Amino acid sequence: MRGVYRAFRLESDGTVSVLDQRLLPFEERYVTLKSAEDTVEAIKSMTVRGAGVIGNIAAFGVYLASKESSGDIEMIEKRAKNIRESRPTAVNLMWAVDRLMEIAYKSDKNERTQRLRDEAIKLCDEEAQMSAKIGSFGADMIEELMQRKGLKRVNVLTHCNAGWLAIVDDGSALAPIYEAKRRGLDIHVWVDETRPRNQGANLTAWELQKCGVPHTVIADNSGGHLMQHNMVDLCITGADRVGLNGDAANKIGTYLKALAAKDNGIPFYVALPSSTFDFTVTDGLSQIPIEIRSEKEVTHIKGLTDKGEVEEVRIVPEGSAAVNYGFDVTPARLITGLITERGICRADKESIKSTFKDII
Amino acid sequence: MRGVYRAFRLESDGTVSVLDQRLLPFEERYVTLKSAEDTVEAIKSMTVRGAGVIGNIAAFGVYLASKESSGDIEMIEKRAKNIRESRPTAVNLMWAVDRLMEIAYKSDKNERTQRLRDEAIKLCDEEAQMSAKIGSFGADMIEELMQRKGLKRVNVLTHCNAGWLAIVDDGSALAPIYEAKRRGLDIHVWVDETRPRNQGANLTAWELQKCGVPHTVIADNSGGHLMQHNMVDLCITGADRVGLNGDAANKIGTYLKALAAKDNGIPFYVALPSSTFDFTVTDGLSQIPIEIRSEKEVTHIKGLTDKGEVEEVRIVPEGSAAVNYGFDVTPARLITGLITERGICRADKESIKSTFKDII
Repeated sequence: MRGVYRAFRLESDGTVSVLDQRLLPFEERYVTLKSAEDTVEAIKSMTVRGAGVIGNIAAFGVYLASKESSGDIEMIEKRAKNIRESRPTAVNLMWAVDRLMEIAYKSDKNERTQRLRDEAIKLCDEEAQMSAKIGSFGADMIEELMQRKGLKRVNVLTHCNAGWLAIVDDGSALAPIYEAKRRGLDIHVWVDETRPRNQGANLTAWELQKCGVPHTVIADNSGGHLMQHNMVDLCITGADRVGLNGDAANKIGTYLKALAAKDNGIPFYVALPSSTFDFTVTDGLSQIPIEIRSEKEVTHIKGLTDKGEVEEVRIVPEGSAAVNYGFDVTPARLITGLITERGICRADKESIKSTFKDII
Repeated sequence: MRGVYRAFRLESDGTVSVLDQRLLPFEERYVTLKSAEDTVEAIKSMTVRGAGVIGNIAAFGVYLASKESSGDIEMIEKRAKNIRESRPTAVNLMWAVDRLMEIAYKSDKNERTQRLRDEAIKLCDEEAQMSAKIGSFGADMIEELMQRKGLKRVNVLTHCNAGWLAIVDDGSALAPIYEAKRRGLDIHVWVDETRPRNQGANLTAWELQKCGVPHTVIADNSGGHLMQHNMVDLCITGADRVGLNGDAANKIGTYLKALAAKDNGIPFYVALPSSTFDFTVTDGLSQIPIEIRSEKEVTHIKGLTDKGEVEEVRIVPEGSAAVNYGFDVTPARLITGLITERGICRADKESIKSTFKDII
């Protein structure tokens, strides 16, 4: 199934079509990005989301900036800055923009647009390869765990969405799961609904359904109880930014699951392509910026009425305040290992340094 | 404000009016319970909920069973059994039914209904007194904490609803908060929305608003992040059943907050009247039955449309399974103390035994 589904595609007219993730799972609609400004808007509004895909779309955004300004470097710079600042936590965004801008500076004006287009495609292709490798290393680990524990079926808990809607082609956290399924392992996924934006219930459940992976949606509150009662064998989440010391920023609530995994002796893995590392971060808790999003994401929720219409309803009484931190940081001490395209390494400075010494 | 609000009332015609908590915060509607069967239905459907109030309504249910059968003991026994089995986790339910049945057996048929009515009222009055004492001991603890830490404002995190909608008059977890407010302390409450039934967002926020207590609703995923960043000074939750060893069953997700509190050195208290103890339980994790409720509570949610109508929407894609455990058990080792009507005791066998030796 690898590569069958993608969250976006480059069209022959040079625009970029993205699956509007705000409408999933109730409607599959593509939105066309024609300009860098469209890209900024799509990232801010979470029409596209997921650390990897944000980076991919940001890369195409720099290409679009060049296309619409006929390669004018000052215009590209200005727009690239807006793209770079469209969301604060996922580091792939900054990484992708910087990588594309390097090409922009190195290119002549008349070939700039073409070279940026090629680089954005190359970046996505590389991430697809990374995803395949993460899947392979992760599935090896799952097989080994099943063997060691004598499991016929393995129950994996995941939080948020880190599948093909987040990273081409198989995602990060879901890549080992898809690969395990391809290998014929009996795998079942506990899907945290992931309030307040419900990426688990809306995106992960939908993705897994499309790919025929058995899964059960649970309230975010449930994971601890499941772990206490031996109903979880393994946790795998994605990440939005991982520091040199192994601290991992991911969707709000990840930290709570990592605590429960630790308390119950359950392995807790974070899966990420190397583009998600921020090697300048030596203490995640104090150094990774955490996005605060609109309180409306807490006070209101969208769903399908029994007439089949998408409706937004208020679920907090008028007059009560709400606050909406988008991410939290899981300290490295709670992480069993980092599943990367170069293999599984420990979540510590020494192991990360030795695995990625050539790119740090 | 104590006693201004109550979740139910005994009417002069001998029926019991209960505030339909399923409609809050969007509509305040009372439902009339005329029979024991009405009581069972109200408890099962969560028209009434909250450990204390379930016990109170169960007590009135036994009275109604007598009233409708003119004191026939066999009929009362049969109906009391149904009431007793209407929900499995909150032990106040069983405790209240047993207490009322003791009176039923001791009474002559012709005075049975009157005596059961008196006993149900007495039970509620006693719980109101317990609630006042829990409030007083808890507020003392809050004052002491504020002094010791030099806090001008105290931030308390709570999970689910354990206010006057759960226990007459001030509740358990919220009683110290209401008392602190009466004493003029500057208190702010982080309200976990408490998926899947959103008792925090729907009930606790509404209650606190009514009583003018500053509060902010958060996704259940947020508490860990707030604790990591010194935004929580204290956690207080209620309980549905607490064992002799101090293990506490409470709304699903409580365990995750207790883990985060422990990890960040934040005091974690459980507030309960003695009727919530189950002294036969010596290991909460293996001995307290955990209710599994309908998966529809996870897949669907009710809210207010912008036209002001209450609408239920589906938030999980059709075809994805869901599971809904109602409670989890927080091990005693994560609990700083139990706030009871006899003072604050440690969550261990020795301390619980010495505090409640006369009723164990």
